[in-house]
Amino acid sequence: MSVIKVDAELVERYILELGKFGAWGDTGVWRPVYTPEWISARDQFASWCEEAGLHVHQDAVGNVWGRLDGSESGKSIVSGSHIDTQKPGGRYDGALGALGALIAIRTLKEQFGQPRRTLEAVALCEEESSRFAANFWGSRAIIGAIAPGDPDRIVNEDGESIAEAMRAIGLDPDRCAEAKRDDIEAFLELHIEQGPVLEQAELPVAVVSGIAGVRVYRVVLNGTANHAGAFPMDLRSDPMAGFVEIAQTLTENARRLGRPVVTTIGQVFAEPNGPTIIPSRVEFTVDARHVDTDAYHQLLASHEQVIRDIASKHGLGIELDWFIDHEPSPSDPNIVRVLEEGASEQGIPFMTMPSGAAHDAQQMAEITNIGMVFVRSKDGRSHTPEEYSSVDDMTAGIKLLASGLHKLAY
Amino acid sequence: MSVIKVDAELVERYILELGKFGAWGDTGVWRPVYTPEWISARDQFASWCEEAGLHVHQDAVGNVWGRLDGSESGKSIVSGSHIDTQKPGGRYDGALGALGALIAIRTLKEQFGQPRRTLEAVALCEEESSRFAANFWGSRAIIGAIAPGDPDRIVNEDGESIAEAMRAIGLDPDRCAEAKRDDIEAFLELHIEQGPVLEQAELPVAVVSGIAGVRVYRVVLNGTANHAGAFPMDLRSDPMAGFVEIAQTLTENARRLGRPVVTTIGQVFAEPNGPTIIPSRVEFTVDARHVDTDAYHQLLASHEQVIRDIASKHGLGIELDWFIDHEPSPSDPNIVRVLEEGASEQGIPFMTMPSGAAHDAQQMAEITNIGMVFVRSKDGRSHTPEEYSSVDDMTAGIKLLASGLHKLAY
Repeated sequence: MSVIKVDAELVERYILELGKFGAWGDTGVWRPVYTPEWISARDQFASWCEEAGLHVHQDAVGNVWGRLDGSESGKSIVSGSHIDTQKPGGRYDGALGALGALIAIRTLKEQFGQPRRTLEAVALCEEESSRFAANFWGSRAIIGAIAPGDPDRIVNEDGESIAEAMRAIGLDPDRCAEAKRDDIEAFLELHIEQGPVLEQAELPVAVVSGIAGVRVYRVVLNGTANHAGAFPMDLRSDPMAGFVEIAQTLTENARRLGRPVVTTIGQVFAEPNGPTIIPSRVEFTVDARHVDTDAYHQLLASHEQVIRDIASKHGLGIELDWFIDHEPSPSDPNIVRVLEEGASEQGIPFMTMPSGAAHDAQQMAEITNIGMVFVRSKDGRSHTPEEYSSVDDMTAGIKLLASGLHKLAY
Repeated sequence: MSVIKVDAELVERYILELGKFGAWGDTGVWRPVYTPEWISARDQFASWCEEAGLHVHQDAVGNVWGRLDGSESGKSIVSGSHIDTQKPGGRYDGALGALGALIAIRTLKEQFGQPRRTLEAVALCEEESSRFAANFWGSRAIIGAIAPGDPDRIVNEDGESIAEAMRAIGLDPDRCAEAKRDDIEAFLELHIEQGPVLEQAELPVAVVSGIAGVRVYRVVLNGTANHAGAFPMDLRSDPMAGFVEIAQTLTENARRLGRPVVTTIGQVFAEPNGPTIIPSRVEFTVDARHVDTDAYHQLLASHEQVIRDIASKHGLGIELDWFIDHEPSPSDPNIVRVLEEGASEQGIPFMTMPSGAAHDAQQMAEITNIGMVFVRSKDGRSHTPEEYSSVDDMTAGIKLLASGLHKLAY
């Protein structure tokens, strides 16, 4: 196939201009869903879609779609990502995938004309829990995973429901179900890596083999508060001692297993949390991920066994449950192959790697075949104003995405 | 010597009546220094001293002394403890030692008349940091360790200085230095054990061989916050991983060394403390104690080495300092001998053990010979409304204290 020519100046201009909506300091963006900043970004995306000659419409939850009709009937080939951000986040996480889809489809249209299959670019809403504990809101609407009543039930720290926020900008929360799609053939998401693997490998882009399964446990260990001086070690029921042994064992086990296994203790609360008091209660989280389904479940089983055994050894009461739980989502083998071939043909150095982070594509996997392209992140940073990807790397990522879309749609 | 007869009904009545000042729930006491509840308790103590025929005076910081003059001139034999409490604490921590000193001296006076050496009972103030970060305030005044300006410098969470609190109840903070004493021959403190050792040994009382040295470190580990999914274990700079390995190693080492070594991680704060983010910063405390001076310093050196080595292994920035630091205070060998002989003569089963907790006696050791008597604590509990010691055990403790005072003063 011919070499695809992506306009690097356009990539840079779109990224910088979209980043102005909710700009935070020099390089950050703070753009919660359904706010004026988000509305401006959504409208800008829609306007650029129109400029590219795409048919634009907004769905029932506020996802914006730009459609390039194919010459044949059939399901669509879709690409996109989210345009809400962390608080604050940067210019790249999410935005690159929405703008990249638009630029890729615009480029294909300009260079190759009408596709055989319909192509769609989509800007998704509220992937990050930017304003409500409702992450993947846009993609969950598309797969039909929003239940009636959810918009009223989901209330943020200010006491505001997502239903109220939708109504305030003219969306009808009772119509969320209308956002459901059953006519998508494939979903390709371009995203920054959010890790240091590509930088370490000195590569601009990666084809993603699959998205890791993730379970995040909340563990509570209950012991007895006592005087740190007067209570001998051998008579204590000390949940901090239990916690540190559990956490040390879990992270050591994950390190020993090596990539792509990760296990993270991100959050801990001790009570009463005084310097000279043995704690009565320690609560902590365990985030465990693996991209292979069998290995993922072995990892979870092993972690749970370690937690229970050590709590029992220390004579501690235990509460163990989880509040995030996604099975691994392997990429579609055909999409992986198409992207790998595209990279070779376009002369883009790449590697194939799993995604440790969750993405909208993981939701979309419920209804369609998925694939992802990663772009190198400076220092592996994300969810911060310091996140950065070079224009060259982003352009290479969009070129790789376009080559995949070309193979699927032309 | 003759058997000393301590009135168990008086012990019970005094403990229950003093506990009414600042009563908290069924069995708790919340009695911060210089409050109306504390003033009532102080006045009650003074009134009981007068009733026992002691000369009463309050010193410059509010310690109340009841004096039984000896027939000979010379330094005093003093006993007492504090009457402020934790928030909330119980009826026994501190109060038992002040009331026990008063009852012991009253009993000796009734049974043996005037002593050779002057005996004094003292109710000390603000041992617990009950209202200000000013623990051992009363005993530090007696040893002359309060600097001019301290009363104005020490400000609590409500923005109130200890100087203001003193003035509000008629004490002059500029005269703290007048509380200094240089005429004390010995200080004996009766106190609840605050641990489970006597209960486990099925003994009512202990003679205390010395008070453990205690250093409480504040450690900060600095790493880099990153995405818990996208950042491989082998590329992380994770202060939580460093913390749990340090804490596990320190507590395991202390457990292996065995009694009387204790090491406690009581407090931990992580930032940003999110379930799916590798923390950037973990701050924690390490409380380390040992009663033997050489072994204490070996323990501290070993702990510091472990902290630095593991932080370095994980590539973490480190801040290490301490905010509590007391050397071990061995009891005076003569006082230990006198108390051990007294226990045998009075037929009181006992053991000799170190104190892991700090006490006013540790301050008093700066200016005089010290000794302590412990009374069995139910379930080893203290600093809680649930703390409890039986009337029989308290009476045995006061009898042992009285026998020691008798040997030193008659």
